[in-house]
Amino acid sequence: MKSTDVLIIGGSAAGLSSANSIKTWYPDKQVTVVRDVSYTVVPCGIPYIYGMLKAVEKDKIPDDGFLKKGIEFIIARVSEIDRTKHVVAFADGETIHYEKLILAMGASPLVPSIPGGQLENIFPINKDPLYLQKIDEVLQQSKDVAIIGGGFIGVEMAEQIRLKGDYNVTLIEALPHCLAMACEEEHGKKIELELDRLGVKVLTNTRVESFLGDIKVNGLMLSDGSTLDADMVILGIGTVPNIEIAGNSGLKVNAREGIIVDEYLRTSDPDIFACGDCASKFSTINGQAVVIRLASVAASEGLIAASNLYKLNRKTQGALGAFATKVGNVSVGAAGFTERMCKENDIDYYIGKMIAPDRHPGSLPGCTMQTEVKLLFDRKDDRIIGGHVLGGVQAADMVNILALAIQQRLTAAELAIMQYATHPLLTGSPLVYQVMWAAENALVSK
Amino acid sequence: MKSTDVLIIGGSAAGLSSANSIKTWYPDKQVTVVRDVSYTVVPCGIPYIYGMLKAVEKDKIPDDGFLKKGIEFIIARVSEIDRTKHVVAFADGETIHYEKLILAMGASPLVPSIPGGQLENIFPINKDPLYLQKIDEVLQQSKDVAIIGGGFIGVEMAEQIRLKGDYNVTLIEALPHCLAMACEEEHGKKIELELDRLGVKVLTNTRVESFLGDIKVNGLMLSDGSTLDADMVILGIGTVPNIEIAGNSGLKVNAREGIIVDEYLRTSDPDIFACGDCASKFSTINGQAVVIRLASVAASEGLIAASNLYKLNRKTQGALGAFATKVGNVSVGAAGFTERMCKENDIDYYIGKMIAPDRHPGSLPGCTMQTEVKLLFDRKDDRIIGGHVLGGVQAADMVNILALAIQQRLTAAELAIMQYATHPLLTGSPLVYQVMWAAENALVSK
Repeated sequence: MKSTDVLIIGGSAAGLSSANSIKTWYPDKQVTVVRDVSYTVVPCGIPYIYGMLKAVEKDKIPDDGFLKKGIEFIIARVSEIDRTKHVVAFADGETIHYEKLILAMGASPLVPSIPGGQLENIFPINKDPLYLQKIDEVLQQSKDVAIIGGGFIGVEMAEQIRLKGDYNVTLIEALPHCLAMACEEEHGKKIELELDRLGVKVLTNTRVESFLGDIKVNGLMLSDGSTLDADMVILGIGTVPNIEIAGNSGLKVNAREGIIVDEYLRTSDPDIFACGDCASKFSTINGQAVVIRLASVAASEGLIAASNLYKLNRKTQGALGAFATKVGNVSVGAAGFTERMCKENDIDYYIGKMIAPDRHPGSLPGCTMQTEVKLLFDRKDDRIIGGHVLGGVQAADMVNILALAIQQRLTAAELAIMQYATHPLLTGSPLVYQVMWAAENALVSK
Repeated sequence: MKSTDVLIIGGSAAGLSSANSIKTWYPDKQVTVVRDVSYTVVPCGIPYIYGMLKAVEKDKIPDDGFLKKGIEFIIARVSEIDRTKHVVAFADGETIHYEKLILAMGASPLVPSIPGGQLENIFPINKDPLYLQKIDEVLQQSKDVAIIGGGFIGVEMAEQIRLKGDYNVTLIEALPHCLAMACEEEHGKKIELELDRLGVKVLTNTRVESFLGDIKVNGLMLSDGSTLDADMVILGIGTVPNIEIAGNSGLKVNAREGIIVDEYLRTSDPDIFACGDCASKFSTINGQAVVIRLASVAASEGLIAASNLYKLNRKTQGALGAFATKVGNVSVGAAGFTERMCKENDIDYYIGKMIAPDRHPGSLPGCTMQTEVKLLFDRKDDRIIGGHVLGGVQAADMVNILALAIQQRLTAAELAIMQYATHPLLTGSPLVYQVMWAAENALVSK
């Protein structure tokens, strides 16, 4: 039987992040990552395989850097965890003994129970490179592509498949707008307009009633009674945490939230930690259980789990949800709550907005004239609970200023007089700097 | 005699920022800005007049937006403040009565006492559009351009004049490296290499002993004994605060620091506030008097002064110094202390660095592979006191995450587990996100 100090099950964001962190803190510990795929893909890069990158291998996270740090990889499927013996068994019959175990088992795509769901060429998105390759092959032979779910994966797949070739791409979203789970409604609308400009047909407020076809899918029946031709279907409607093996080992799990962990990311077994998509989370903002499955949360949790393995060092501050994407020429960033979430959570909030160019003067190269920052504050304590950016490629970095502000629970009064580096070629003018003036405008509107 | 509620002397960053803020908070107050130039230029945009923008008027901050808010402009030179009568007199004999006065009089370029300094075609940089136009005209007739001072203005002017045409541009810096007052030495070095690539001759560790010439300058004598041909000279070696008029009115002033203000940016007269380059400042980091003359500080101070005019609302948190620039393909951002400043201030510090691509995978468009974040922490309390970024156009937004962190006095432990939005097309990978891992590496090195 093999043996290792720290065994990590899962080789994506949470697993690799914790592996890196353990080796940084404890270079002498033997760290072994087990994964059930031949290599790890950049999970957020999957849509780009089908457009800009042009090949699955181009979206690879190379093992080299990890191997150089002394991290070992095992390619196998885990079948069982024997917590009493500290042994993990693989489907091929092999076993490995661990001192500490990190579960970074991720989540699986949600597959809706819709008539016809068993037909061929319906593809929920997972992270297996062979499977992603198969999608590419079917895409080569297709013309009409239906994408179900207008979240990040859906809008990005739609954009990239249009970029790949002259496909008829239809994006179907049940909610009134795309990206509604993370972004402000008006920002989701902008993304829809950009998709439309790129030739994607966007159907919001629309559900899929059934998949049509014989062996292979050839169409969809929609909630408005119409049908839609489809040679293939891509599903991006959410995920469910991978809890089965953990649950079978007697660890506390919850089908919706994942493997139950405490603030140190410990499971109900003190030698087993869980992080990333498979682990339960609470909201940074209100402390309530929340489903946010995101690589940046996983990466942060990987560092937290790693640091607590041998001594309880770090508590999680909860999951924030800091997102960004780019569709065509439009980028959006979102951190924390949207107006809709505030309403759902009965939060009395006020907002502040600022729209200004992101260069000064605006005639300078690379300028996105209508760069908007929108901030949401809780009226009860004046603290920021949401930050949203619509603009150019700097949206993600700008929203990270807001992500930090939310995690630090800053007030509008504090944000308004913060000093921010500005430069003609790199940012908007200090006179109208979006974060500053969105905060100032929020104070005045309050 | 004219009369106004709030008179603002100075129409650049501090003046316009406070004007905006007063009109936002008190729409009914009459706000009058007096300036001695026909229009306001984007101060940080001045170097780009001579390259990318191609004309002084292209660097204009239009009055329209301010006029629309009801802000009035007077073009005049202030000669005197009569504090007892609440009256300001202009050089043309006109006078105006004020209720509250904001001094946003800026700073003037420092002109060194060097033999030959009176010769023609030696140009310290000020913000008068006519004067800036004159520089452009002399530039048209020149070939050899010497720029003294390797700070932000100097490196940006050098880059832009090379972009304008086939000039022999020499940049002369007395310190061992360019940008040494704001940026890490190794980042200054990278900018020098980029200037070199663009055809600028950079002379560091070099002083100017005298200007040569008869009526017009035609050369420089350098500290190494060599001479340099120069049809014109541009000076960017610092500024002195405009304190004369304030001092003559009996306000407390200091020749180096400026008009003395308290935490509310009140001068020694409770009806007179001062902000921006003309006002005294203390460091956000150590509370000591500091000379940081920067549009972003001025903009923040404008909001603070405005909010305190009629009721003391806001205290300044001091001047941080958050800078960014771009030379060729290299951008740098800097917030707070450098290693050199830590040494000068006897601060026991530790650092953490992370270099990674700013897209993931790095083959995606727009990637700057060697995007570096360097963080400095005070060993005494583990709080961040400096943050530096070297990379692509996102350097300014990235350094603003750090600017916020410094202003909030975050620790490395807090920064390492913060959640940051990431996206393949917009940022580095969450697995190696620079801010996160620079903090984690700092913790390990500590």
